[in-house]
Amino acid sequence: MSLLAVGTIAFDAIETPFGKVDKIIGGSANYIAWSAGHFCKPVQISAVVGDDYPQSEVEQLKHLGVDFSGLQVKEGQKSFFWSGKYDMNLNDRTTAQTDLNVLADFDPILPPQYRSTDYVLLGNLTPEVQLRVLNQMEKRPKLIAMDTMNYWIENDAYKPGLLEVLKRVDILIINEEEARMLGQDYSIVKCAKHILHTMGPTFVIVKKGEHGALLFHKKAAYFAPALPLEEVFDPTGAGDSFAGGFMGYIACTNDISFENLKRGVIYGSAMASFCVEKFGPQRLKELDMQQIDRRIQEFVDLVQVDIVLQD
Amino acid sequence: MSLLAVGTIAFDAIETPFGKVDKIIGGSANYIAWSAGHFCKPVQISAVVGDDYPQSEVEQLKHLGVDFSGLQVKEGQKSFFWSGKYDMNLNDRTTAQTDLNVLADFDPILPPQYRSTDYVLLGNLTPEVQLRVLNQMEKRPKLIAMDTMNYWIENDAYKPGLLEVLKRVDILIINEEEARMLGQDYSIVKCAKHILHTMGPTFVIVKKGEHGALLFHKKAAYFAPALPLEEVFDPTGAGDSFAGGFMGYIACTNDISFENLKRGVIYGSAMASFCVEKFGPQRLKELDMQQIDRRIQEFVDLVQVDIVLQD
Repeated sequence: MSLLAVGTIAFDAIETPFGKVDKIIGGSANYIAWSAGHFCKPVQISAVVGDDYPQSEVEQLKHLGVDFSGLQVKEGQKSFFWSGKYDMNLNDRTTAQTDLNVLADFDPILPPQYRSTDYVLLGNLTPEVQLRVLNQMEKRPKLIAMDTMNYWIENDAYKPGLLEVLKRVDILIINEEEARMLGQDYSIVKCAKHILHTMGPTFVIVKKGEHGALLFHKKAAYFAPALPLEEVFDPTGAGDSFAGGFMGYIACTNDISFENLKRGVIYGSAMASFCVEKFGPQRLKELDMQQIDRRIQEFVDLVQVDIVLQD
Repeated sequence: MSLLAVGTIAFDAIETPFGKVDKIIGGSANYIAWSAGHFCKPVQISAVVGDDYPQSEVEQLKHLGVDFSGLQVKEGQKSFFWSGKYDMNLNDRTTAQTDLNVLADFDPILPPQYRSTDYVLLGNLTPEVQLRVLNQMEKRPKLIAMDTMNYWIENDAYKPGLLEVLKRVDILIINEEEARMLGQDYSIVKCAKHILHTMGPTFVIVKKGEHGALLFHKKAAYFAPALPLEEVFDPTGAGDSFAGGFMGYIACTNDISFENLKRGVIYGSAMASFCVEKFGPQRLKELDMQQIDRRIQEFVDLVQVDIVLQD
């Protein structure tokens, strides 16, 4: 099945304790496409770039089966730019510069073939843009997942829009800090329950970086490990690679049972674990299915334990 | 098989965001005994108390099958006392008061029947006291595990002694902060490898609290989840309950294979998850094997995922 993803396509300047790059490609839609594209064809991208964005990057993704008919190229304008620096712990980052450029007035217009897609992933963008995507769908997709960020949760101008989007999605994918902010409690379990019971989504995935991820659904919870990595080179895009791998796998298998979502979390975690090994989406570009399968097996083995209880 | 455990028996005053107690029983040997005692008989305790320590507490543990012939009662002296307060996140705690009292000159003297025990757990005490325990063993135990703390790692007066103990143990059980301090790297994987390759232990267990635990051995790693708890009432003793459950299970099954140590990590995690539900060892006192088995099953279910890869 196809997967519709809306997000950013950008240039990033990144500094980590292990190195520095001045201008590489980034943005949530790029990471989602490079991650989901390994599982699901086509991934339909809705995004905006300026005329400074290299066509070769678009071609590489097209080669993977990504549909770019929803990509808007704004002549005479510049692509979204973000620069930031990571602390030694690689969890905390400081944004040095954010130039919205073309993103400032992004109006996602979905080509006709995008509007009946069954699987939708709303990358982190203003709640208003996320809503405009949903409003163009001709039928209720089978599964809608969304990402968001602290800025939209904390900001009174955006919070009502965010709550609107939440009512219309099935899965919220967020990190621990965002979960606490949205659920207004320190306990992640209480936050997830609060979101599930009052806000709309029927599944919540809390990404915990090097500590794995939790999937919550009604009274059930699933705990996916993170691979104990010796080195995390660049965490940029890990969350989007997770979301892309997760939704790419679900769309490809066309199965939205809790059991299959658990598998999706492992596929998402595997793609995130590749992403952090190099700057930008470079490592995702090099992957083949054999490498992905081997990594999935590592995740499965990591938690494998045989316990037989006497009844 | 029997398990020899050395540690503290103390009074604690604890304040958490959920309540406050002025003087309850605590100390690593208490938590270890209440945890391991459910699996392994006898647990042989080597510890020291003043004449203010209630005999009824000792009797309760004897009833569980704990051997207290190695308990020294110092007439006219007071038991070790610790008081502290936990932050809202329940990970950070501030020590308000530490009165060593009888602990200041604790010299563990092992009764004859302790000296040939196959399983030994060195609770967190000065490296010198830990060494004195090992020096009294008549034969090399089958498995020696140790706990330690930041104070002995950072302090130049204790570090050499700590390195001596490390050379003589099989398993080091520590938390993330201590692993980083000892391994001198931010990456937990690198720290574990450094410890395994240069310091003596053949297994390292890194406890990550609400994020689970990692077991490292040569090139293998095992990731045990933590139960997503809605409320952690009092984290005091969770680490000791983990160590007690882990070593209690290993001693009871008398199997030191990597596969069985993985099971031990789940049993340790389960006992820690009970411990934090009430103040002090109260919750551990109330447990029966049926409740423990149900909790173990929850841990197993939490990470259960069926993934079939095409070869």
